[in-house]
Amino acid sequence: MTSQEMALDKRFALAKAIVQEAGAMALDYFNRRESLVIETKRDLQDVVSIADRNVEMLIRERVETMFAEDGFLGEEFGHTTGTSGYTWVVDPIDGTAPFVNGMPNWCVSIAVLHENVPVIGVIGAPCHGELYAAAVGEGAKLNGKMLSLDPSRTIQNAVTGIGANSYVAPEIVADIVSRLLQAGGNFVRNGSGALMLAYVAAGRLVGYYEPYMHAWDCLAGYCLVKEAGGWYHPFPTEDENLTRGAPVIASGPGARSDLEKLAGVA
Amino acid sequence: MTSQEMALDKRFALAKAIVQEAGAMALDYFNRRESLVIETKRDLQDVVSIADRNVEMLIRERVETMFAEDGFLGEEFGHTTGTSGYTWVVDPIDGTAPFVNGMPNWCVSIAVLHENVPVIGVIGAPCHGELYAAAVGEGAKLNGKMLSLDPSRTIQNAVTGIGANSYVAPEIVADIVSRLLQAGGNFVRNGSGALMLAYVAAGRLVGYYEPYMHAWDCLAGYCLVKEAGGWYHPFPTEDENLTRGAPVIASGPGARSDLEKLAGVA
Repeated sequence: MTSQEMALDKRFALAKAIVQEAGAMALDYFNRRESLVIETKRDLQDVVSIADRNVEMLIRERVETMFAEDGFLGEEFGHTTGTSGYTWVVDPIDGTAPFVNGMPNWCVSIAVLHENVPVIGVIGAPCHGELYAAAVGEGAKLNGKMLSLDPSRTIQNAVTGIGANSYVAPEIVADIVSRLLQAGGNFVRNGSGALMLAYVAAGRLVGYYEPYMHAWDCLAGYCLVKEAGGWYHPFPTEDENLTRGAPVIASGPGARSDLEKLAGVA
Repeated sequence: MTSQEMALDKRFALAKAIVQEAGAMALDYFNRRESLVIETKRDLQDVVSIADRNVEMLIRERVETMFAEDGFLGEEFGHTTGTSGYTWVVDPIDGTAPFVNGMPNWCVSIAVLHENVPVIGVIGAPCHGELYAAAVGEGAKLNGKMLSLDPSRTIQNAVTGIGANSYVAPEIVADIVSRLLQAGGNFVRNGSGALMLAYVAAGRLVGYYEPYMHAWDCLAGYCLVKEAGGWYHPFPTEDENLTRGAPVIASGPGARSDLEKLAGVA
């Protein structure tokens, strides 16, 4: 094992351990969210914000203890540059709308970039007891079981995930829905883009498209999809501050051209 | 307790027991679906069809043993009229697209009508370990906890569920999405209409709209929503064969007028 492989392996092991610890913390907030609203005399949205920040703080602390020389980008507290060439990219709770409303479709998402390339992707879905984990060259696994995408699946014979936040105009979202259905597709939107990308890696969805996402929403999912044998549209990770949004498209091999067409990047 | 209350109570107890037994059977098919494809040399869609039919058969047998005089309508085997004034309306697996693709968002749905009115609604979501149960005048419960809708929740401050099957033209679906977003709403579509109606009863979604659904998809959810303090748009249960599709709209009190507008029934 080269020193670079060892560097990767140590971070992969840590990422998996952190996602489980952070997931347990987030799940505790989720299960207590109604009593916390009463105790803190705040509203649900505040409780989620507190959960989001405290989960990210936990993740930052764990990374800093082991790899103080790594960069770190989290949705809540922004970007700290590092010196090792590795950068952790973290969404402490992806799917805050499901979280705040009591739906199980939310997750903790951790990517590690090496020289701007996502080399580790770990996503935990605590309500479902699921851990998705991939590292470059090692494949992608769901709860320890290797994932491998079936090239015979297409947007016509499988389901596609879509997402859109408030940056995207209603007419654009409607147009995506209309064209996907006209092409013979079918869609779900479960409220967590990172989790839907993990579902692409698991073959549950054949693809995912969202016109505007941030690095913390998509990079762990991208690594998972690629290691499962799928494809993703490049994300602008070379930007110094990594906070620019961009279109996110990922798919199994049989849906790539249809999704590129849908997203207008073909 | 009057004899009519006793008649209702016995059927409510049976409906809850059956949903749990049927849910366990469906979950077993779900967990074994990939090995069943190999064993039976069929495709996934066939395996789901077999699961659907066998789960409905189980439910029919259980009902017939206890209440041979009741009518029964199932998605798979159609309508048998009864003489008691009670009719069971059953979707053995609602959300076959999630089921076939390995996603957890599917459920078993059982309604009981009395003189065309849904008086019992029980929905089981086996992957989530959740049982939603309501009977007229007794309230709605999720895993034994009483549900009560918050009138301050609206389509603007909460999430709305939408659905559409292949009967609905792509432009119609796109128009629903566009108008919901323009009105300041946000949507999810998890692939199971019955489960999203249960989520309305649980306050996880503030409303649900699907332009065309069948009795077996919506009547259990309708009873749940009503008993939780919500509202539903009448469904044509007076039709003798109960197999005609119709628009389905249900909501908490704060979203009714916006959803009626969205569905064009205001």
